[in-house]
Amino acid sequence: MRLSRYFLPTLRENPAEAQIVSHRLMLRAGLVRQSAAGIYSWLPLGLKVLRNIEKIVREEQNRAGAIELLMPTIQSADLWRESGRYEAYGKEMLRITDRHEREMLFGPTNEELITAIFRDNVKSYRDLPRNLYHIQWKFRDEVRPRFGVMRGREFLMKDAYSFDLDKEGARKAYEKMFVAYLRTYARMGLKAIPMAADTGPIGGDMSHEFIILAETGESAVFCHKDLVDYDILGTKVDFEASLTPIIERWTGLYAATDEKHDAARFAAEVPAEKQISARGIEVGHIFYFGTKYSKPMGAVVAGPNGESIELEMGSYGIGVSRLMGAIIEASHDEGGIVWPESVAPFKVGLINLKAGDATVDAAAAKLYAALEAAGVETLYDDTDERAGAKFATMDLIGLPWQVHVGPRGLAKGVVEVKNRKTGERAEVALDDVVARFTAA
Amino acid sequence: MRLSRYFLPTLRENPAEAQIVSHRLMLRAGLVRQSAAGIYSWLPLGLKVLRNIEKIVREEQNRAGAIELLMPTIQSADLWRESGRYEAYGKEMLRITDRHEREMLFGPTNEELITAIFRDNVKSYRDLPRNLYHIQWKFRDEVRPRFGVMRGREFLMKDAYSFDLDKEGARKAYEKMFVAYLRTYARMGLKAIPMAADTGPIGGDMSHEFIILAETGESAVFCHKDLVDYDILGTKVDFEASLTPIIERWTGLYAATDEKHDAARFAAEVPAEKQISARGIEVGHIFYFGTKYSKPMGAVVAGPNGESIELEMGSYGIGVSRLMGAIIEASHDEGGIVWPESVAPFKVGLINLKAGDATVDAAAAKLYAALEAAGVETLYDDTDERAGAKFATMDLIGLPWQVHVGPRGLAKGVVEVKNRKTGERAEVALDDVVARFTAA
Repeated sequence: MRLSRYFLPTLRENPAEAQIVSHRLMLRAGLVRQSAAGIYSWLPLGLKVLRNIEKIVREEQNRAGAIELLMPTIQSADLWRESGRYEAYGKEMLRITDRHEREMLFGPTNEELITAIFRDNVKSYRDLPRNLYHIQWKFRDEVRPRFGVMRGREFLMKDAYSFDLDKEGARKAYEKMFVAYLRTYARMGLKAIPMAADTGPIGGDMSHEFIILAETGESAVFCHKDLVDYDILGTKVDFEASLTPIIERWTGLYAATDEKHDAARFAAEVPAEKQISARGIEVGHIFYFGTKYSKPMGAVVAGPNGESIELEMGSYGIGVSRLMGAIIEASHDEGGIVWPESVAPFKVGLINLKAGDATVDAAAAKLYAALEAAGVETLYDDTDERAGAKFATMDLIGLPWQVHVGPRGLAKGVVEVKNRKTGERAEVALDDVVARFTAA
Repeated sequence: MRLSRYFLPTLRENPAEAQIVSHRLMLRAGLVRQSAAGIYSWLPLGLKVLRNIEKIVREEQNRAGAIELLMPTIQSADLWRESGRYEAYGKEMLRITDRHEREMLFGPTNEELITAIFRDNVKSYRDLPRNLYHIQWKFRDEVRPRFGVMRGREFLMKDAYSFDLDKEGARKAYEKMFVAYLRTYARMGLKAIPMAADTGPIGGDMSHEFIILAETGESAVFCHKDLVDYDILGTKVDFEASLTPIIERWTGLYAATDEKHDAARFAAEVPAEKQISARGIEVGHIFYFGTKYSKPMGAVVAGPNGESIELEMGSYGIGVSRLMGAIIEASHDEGGIVWPESVAPFKVGLINLKAGDATVDAAAAKLYAALEAAGVETLYDDTDERAGAKFATMDLIGLPWQVHVGPRGLAKGVVEVKNRKTGERAEVALDDVVARFTAA
């Protein structure tokens, strides 16, 4: 993409309304703009990152055997009356009346709707187990939206729902999502720690939040220090085999959110020098809740002998749009954002240091064409800004690699390649640049 | 995907509530389920088709130089007061009051929001022209939703917005979208005819609807028969060159929707035997409306001499979810849907004719693995249904190719390959099956 034809409005100054670094950088780097309290438009660069995050989430859900569908944003209030949650949910639910005076709502979560779909379409034990998920915009009418996309009102969430015939099956489904979540965050360069958590308005018997330690986090959390150093799961996890050993390893050490924290147990189980008491960002939350929805909603299937089986369920959420803020909180420096390659909007930022100079223009344009042809996503700054401003913008938006093309280097047949994260710079011969970014 | 692990609830009988064939087939083939009046959940098979349609729309928007972003579904009423449309829009707009008693709405279209984004972020003539688009769920509170996704309330729309410095630039932007639309529909196997159209609540000076002729269409349309036979634009359209000749060819013959129809002109301009008076499905609508939004909303940029320039705008919509219905209306037979390959949810439906037979199971599983490894998206019916029911389901869901694996063929080392559209069948040696679907 040529910057001269793109839509990338960056800001030099820190916006006054942004209190945390991710919010400041998302505004300054032209990723989002607020259009109403807690409601954001995703500008082109931000949308590309959002899609990359979404893609990783999707791939790991699919790998774990979950099946994607898509439920609508607007739901009928009657559906929520079946579970008893319509009155219980409180003011966070955005309630709507349509032109025929029917009560509707903008879905804050989808347990009722997916249970209704499953109930109406699946009749036999032979069609279980299943895990169905979607990635859809949700709305929660937060009383005080803040921290940019970290606590917005309209936000993108992946929510999966598992259906099993018995508790043992439901436990396996829970374990699959637990492991899929560990892999998902790891692929984005995040260390997310599963912690025993409260079930809140979803309800249920067992729950974990996935927490990224960060000073700007909204939750107080407590855990054993060794969890922070646990290595990340490779791609070779076999989801058909038992995942219990992995789960036991991660849940064997103390880790709890504020609501579930037991100070006495923490003191007894964790040596003083291993006690972490910190703040964290919740990026995922998983629940096992048995028949909490299937029972009132009559979601049953016929068993092998014709008996009626109430479905055992769980639900599993990842805050997709919030993850963008969390990644920035975890990966930035004084110059701006430092994207992990897996979610970066472009891999390379190509800077023409002297736009208007025929030699530099030609060399940069040729390099840009070669990178694009090789499938290396490149943002080409072909504008006539000063070099200093271009460097600052490129650092701000945080692409993993920069290529600087200028007259001095070209005289020697080289360009400068900069690693955004380490700051390391190298002179690279013009003909070797593409290979540098395509080598496996 | 193995059918035994998928979520594909098909129906044998025609649902009573569906009046038109696309609606019937979308329910029967397990593509969608209604969750409230005019509001649908997209089941896994339907979602795959929806994403394929969306991908074609996106590729053609990008090819024409439009840039993708994403605006939220919920907008502030104040924004719509700036343009004067908040009161004018009527009951189709879903109006919402949030917990702080602020007036909000679920966006039925986005002229106001994109104009505000552009106004707040672009200050100089040097940053024009631009065309920004998004693909987002919209809501229009239809008084009588019907025909499935053809006239739903929550629907997926691609809407693009062009910003130019003068009328001539705006005309070029309009022409680019006009041509991009012709290509978009053609890639889905649809013949969409651009017709002079009323501007309705969007307003403006020039407008075309893109119409697919179909008996079940909701609009009466009138056009010259030759337009139906016009060939489709190849991929070699140069969007940097003048597109006027293409536009003149398509607009040179009479074509108008009901609201714009002039019976006298029709009779005078079109020979009787060339007069088509038919019904049509609107799948796109483009508008040029000049400064209708930029003027009241103060969307101006500084010109080369510091003068203030009011932006010339157009907007361009494609009904992405409606297109699924339109494609089915145009492509089905008595057995069910016949997907064009470009939007098919899977390319191949692999049928195991004798599940439980070790030889057949092994051969089918091996073929399935080989197809998937070669990147051929395959739905493998590994269930223990009867062969007849499997054939019927596979015809119903309309994958372009079927591969039938049974004991009789395997004894000869062959399988049967069936083309869903033509019904043509061929015996193919087991080792040649994959190559048949991967050859360029």
